Amino acid sequence: MELDVKAFKKEMSNRKEYVDSCLQKYLHNVEIQPAVIHEAMYYAVLNGGKRLRPILVFEGAILAGSRRETVMPLACAVEMIHCYSLVHDDLPAMDDDDFRRGKPTCHKVFGEANAILTGDALLTAAFELMSLNAQVEGVKPAYLIRVIGEIARAAGSRGMIGGQVIDLQSEGKAVDYETLRTLHSLKTGELFRASLRAGAILTGMNEAGVNALDDYARSFGLAFQITDDILDIKGNEELIGKPVGSDEKNHKTTYPSLFGLEKSYELARECVEACIASLERFGPEADFLRRLAAYVLIRES
Amino acid sequence: MELDVKAFKKEMSNRKEYVDSCLQKYLHNVEIQPAVIHEAMYYAVLNGGKRLRPILVFEGAILAGSRRETVMPLACAVEMIHCYSLVHDDLPAMDDDDFRRGKPTCHKVFGEANAILTGDALLTAAFELMSLNAQVEGVKPAYLIRVIGEIARAAGSRGMIGGQVIDLQSEGKAVDYETLRTLHSLKTGELFRASLRAGAILTGMNEAGVNALDDYARSFGLAFQITDDILDIKGNEELIGKPVGSDEKNHKTTYPSLFGLEKSYELARECVEACIASLERFGPEADFLRRLAAYVLIRES
Repeated sequence: MELDVKAFKKEMSNRKEYVDSCLQKYLHNVEIQPAVIHEAMYYAVLNGGKRLRPILVFEGAILAGSRRETVMPLACAVEMIHCYSLVHDDLPAMDDDDFRRGKPTCHKVFGEANAILTGDALLTAAFELMSLNAQVEGVKPAYLIRVIGEIARAAGSRGMIGGQVIDLQSEGKAVDYETLRTLHSLKTGELFRASLRAGAILTGMNEAGVNALDDYARSFGLAFQITDDILDIKGNEELIGKPVGSDEKNHKTTYPSLFGLEKSYELARECVEACIASLERFGPEADFLRRLAAYVLIRES
Repeated sequence: MELDVKAFKKEMSNRKEYVDSCLQKYLHNVEIQPAVIHEAMYYAVLNGGKRLRPILVFEGAILAGSRRETVMPLACAVEMIHCYSLVHDDLPAMDDDDFRRGKPTCHKVFGEANAILTGDALLTAAFELMSLNAQVEGVKPAYLIRVIGEIARAAGSRGMIGGQVIDLQSEGKAVDYETLRTLHSLKTGELFRASLRAGAILTGMNEAGVNALDDYARSFGLAFQITDDILDIKGNEELIGKPVGSDEKNHKTTYPSLFGLEKSYELARECVEACIASLERFGPEADFLRRLAAYVLIRES
C-alpha cells in the first residue's frame, strides 16, 4: 500500500497526544503523600514515548465498533506496564542505563530504591486502573476480567518478564535464531498482542476477529523488533558480521548480526505483508493498522 | 476471652498448611522456561511464612456464609503480593538483608537482577491469579473487579508501597508518632484490611458487615505492628530510651522507643479489645477472628 508519510506522522502524533493527555489525568496526583513516589511515577511515564501499546488498544476497540473512550483506562494501564518495565530494565542491577530518550533515568533522578518502588507502583496502578474501566458505560465485567488475565499473563514470567530474563542471560553471548525469536516474542511481542486483543475483547469483538488481530500483532511485533535492530546498527555498520561480545557496542545478537542488513529488511517486509494479509476480513476501518504496519519499515526512530 | 494457646496454634498451623498446599499448586510450574524465574518465585513464596493475609481472606468468605475454596485464588494472590514486597524490601538498594527466616534472601540465591524480576513476576502473577477466581462457581465478575481494585489500591503508592517509601525516608531518623502511625498503616495495615474485606466482598457480604471487618482489620494491623516492635526489642531492652540512630540496632523509631514497653503493651491490648468489639454483629462463626486477635498479644514470633 502507498503511505503518505507526512499525513501518517500527523495521525500518530494526534493519537500520542490523546494518550498523553489521558495518562496525565491519571498521574496528576503528585500532591498525594508520599510525594516522591508520585513525582517519580509521573516522570517515568510522561517521557515522550511513542505510545504504541495504548494506540493498539484503541484500534482494537474501534475495529470492534466501539470508541476509544470506552477503553481509555485499559489503554493507559498497558502503557504504565510498559513504562514500569523500562524503569526496572534501566536499573544498575539490570541494563544500568543512565539515560532514556535523552533524559536521566528514573534511578538517576530519584535514587535506586525509589526507582524500584516506582516500577512496582506503576505495575500495581495499572491493575487498579484496569479495574476502574468497569465504571465506563457498556463495559461488561466478565470481559474486563478476561482482559485483566490476558494482560497479566502477557506481562508476567511467561511473557514480558520471561523475555527480560532470557535477555539478561544472553547478554554478551551469541545466541541462535530460535532463542532470539523467543526472547523478542516474550519481551515485546506478548504485550503488543495483549494490547490489541484487549481493546477488541473488552468491546465485544467475536473470536474470529480477535484471532485475526492476534495474527496482525504477532507479525507487527516481529517487524517492529527487526527494524529496531536495524535502527540500532545504523551508524555502526562496521559491527555487522563481528562476533557478539567482541566489542562493547556489539554485546548482543540481533537480526542484522545473524542475517546481515539486506536479509533483515527482507524479513521485516515479509512480516508487514503478513500484517496486511491478516486484516483481510476488515474493511477500510482497519486502514490505520495497515498504515501502521507499512510505517514500521520506514520509521526513523 | 480465654485462649487455649495450644489448640489455637494447631488451628493456625492447619490453615497455614492449607494455604501452602494451594500456593504450591499455583507455583509448581518450575519446568516452564525460563526456569530460573519460576524457581525463584517458588523459593520466595514457599518459605515458611505465617500466611496471615490469606487466612484473613478465608475468614472474610466464611463470615459471609461461603467456603474458603471459593476465594482460594484470591487468597493465594494476596500472599504473592506480600511475598513480592519482601523480595524487593530485602534488595541491596533497599534494606539490604542477606537472610529471611533463616534462609538466604532471593537476591543472595538468584542474583539481584533476577530478584527484581522475581518480585515483578509475583506481583503480576497475583493479578493473573485473581482474574482466574472468576472461574470458580458462584463468583460474580462485578464483585471480583471491585476486589481487584481494592487490592491494587492497598498494595500501591497510596498503600503498601507508599509505606515502604516513608520507611526508607525514616531510616536512622527519629520520627513522630503520627508519621509512625501512617507508615505502619500504609506498609502493613492496608493489605491486612484489603485481605479481610476482599474475602467478604467477593462472597457477597453486605456493606455493614464489610465495614465491621474493616474496623477489625485496622485494629488488628495496629496490634500486630506494636507487638512486632515489642518482639524486636526483646533481648535488646537496653536500647529503650536511647535516641534513634545512636546504635546500629537502634536505627528506627518503634512503639517501645516512643512509649516504653509497658505502655506499648497497653496500646496493643486496647487494639485487641477494639478488634473484639468490632465483631459484635457476628456470632460464634467469628470466634476464630476473636482468638486470632487475642493471640497477637501472646505470640512469640
